[in-house]
Amino acid sequence: MSAIPLTDTSKLCVHTITTKPWSVEEAIDKYAEAGVGGITVWRQWLEGRKISEVGDQLRACDLEIVSLCRGGFFPAATSQGLEDAIEDNRLAIREAAELGAPMIVLVCGAVPGQALDESRKQIADGIAAALPLAEDYNIRLAIEPLHPMYADDRSAINTMASANEVCDRLDHPLVGIAADVYHIWWDPDLAEQIRITGEKNRLFAYHVCDWMTPTTDLLNDRGLMGEGCIPLEEIRAMVEKAGFTGFNEVEVFSDRWWARDQDEFLTEIKKAYLNYT
Amino acid sequence: MSAIPLTDTSKLCVHTITTKPWSVEEAIDKYAEAGVGGITVWRQWLEGRKISEVGDQLRACDLEIVSLCRGGFFPAATSQGLEDAIEDNRLAIREAAELGAPMIVLVCGAVPGQALDESRKQIADGIAAALPLAEDYNIRLAIEPLHPMYADDRSAINTMASANEVCDRLDHPLVGIAADVYHIWWDPDLAEQIRITGEKNRLFAYHVCDWMTPTTDLLNDRGLMGEGCIPLEEIRAMVEKAGFTGFNEVEVFSDRWWARDQDEFLTEIKKAYLNYT
Repeated sequence: MSAIPLTDTSKLCVHTITTKPWSVEEAIDKYAEAGVGGITVWRQWLEGRKISEVGDQLRACDLEIVSLCRGGFFPAATSQGLEDAIEDNRLAIREAAELGAPMIVLVCGAVPGQALDESRKQIADGIAAALPLAEDYNIRLAIEPLHPMYADDRSAINTMASANEVCDRLDHPLVGIAADVYHIWWDPDLAEQIRITGEKNRLFAYHVCDWMTPTTDLLNDRGLMGEGCIPLEEIRAMVEKAGFTGFNEVEVFSDRWWARDQDEFLTEIKKAYLNYT
Repeated sequence: MSAIPLTDTSKLCVHTITTKPWSVEEAIDKYAEAGVGGITVWRQWLEGRKISEVGDQLRACDLEIVSLCRGGFFPAATSQGLEDAIEDNRLAIREAAELGAPMIVLVCGAVPGQALDESRKQIADGIAAALPLAEDYNIRLAIEPLHPMYADDRSAINTMASANEVCDRLDHPLVGIAADVYHIWWDPDLAEQIRITGEKNRLFAYHVCDWMTPTTDLLNDRGLMGEGCIPLEEIRAMVEKAGFTGFNEVEVFSDRWWARDQDEFLTEIKKAYLNYT
């Protein structure tokens, strides 16, 4: 099983956080100039902006808006906390609609010391509560399973199987999965779980980066594709076999790369995309 | 389902690495004086010693030798590398016999960039090759699934399910599992996989510590029981339900605790053992 060769950057999407030093306006200009096909906008990049105008700028330069990142963080120790989280997700849905993004990535959340099963229930309940508004705007919600090293305070959904289970429970065409290689590459059950996402038409997004050896920071030491040990082509082949034809989204949190000249970094992203993704 | 109350330290085992600043001789004296019931000796602590004499010292103070830590690290890029690893595991078996340890903990190994399935195959082959000598000395080999954040270079066995699969493949009474809460606490399938280890009489060891929020280092920022978010009593209840009656082994790698006075630390270990394990 092999992946389809990547011969141009039309299916390359970059997350604004990947080039963290750039504002959203700079990122849009630079990505478009570099021939990047799509963008995923992090909500922090929209602060202080008129969101519809950012959307206009994106459409003006033909940069496809892949998703808004991120909603989620449902689990809470109090019912008020859960209600606040649902409200914030509704806000994210309105922001996505205003921007023109068809999808929101959900980092589902967890509360240290709270049973993971309870958090998983709150996540399903929270998504269910936000769904009617998502229907109104036709915004897809993509559950991103996070690496088990984030099970304490970032997400109680730590495998594709667990994400598939929440999707089964909600059983809604607007609820699917964002598969990020960083979080799932190690999973012995990966091929089968990706196959299921295809069968159920719920593989909404595909994120790439790499795992560094050694990894010196739990959050901000991701590698660019080809720098680490993730079998990227093999996983992309699984994703394509499952029928996925969307963007390959480059989401790299890296203090090392953020310290570099970002124009050079974007050049390296394109090279890594074409050669190692 | 609740765990059996821990009212004394007779089932408390401490790993020599937990009190890293102490030599094996110091550790033996201190543990015995503190009423610790068992010890797991790390191989580095035996360097430069006559191993049988360390065993004699342990028996003289009634400290039960729970295991020798660690063998494993089978996967290699070359057949010579795999052969060397098997030879080192045979050496560990002889060391365990000389010490009087009935069991070796296996950290199975991984090679960055090598397919995890290939590493898993090499792990099973490596254990199979070391088994005849383990039979000669009646030494049990306990596969320790390691947290997925160590899948790059420490272990390709990252879940209880994956460890159970290797055990199924080898199907041998001397091959079982060391369950360490640090590595497996997040797993949605944990209860079922622990149940299976009981059904198949292969739960050989149980290790405890805690997961800190935030975790500042991938290796050496473990917490003492009660400092973090792992549902320790709940997992111990699962283990006990599976028929496990062995030691609760405290294995804490922590720069923070290693910098403290180790006598005070041992006092804290006992408190944490009785109150939060």
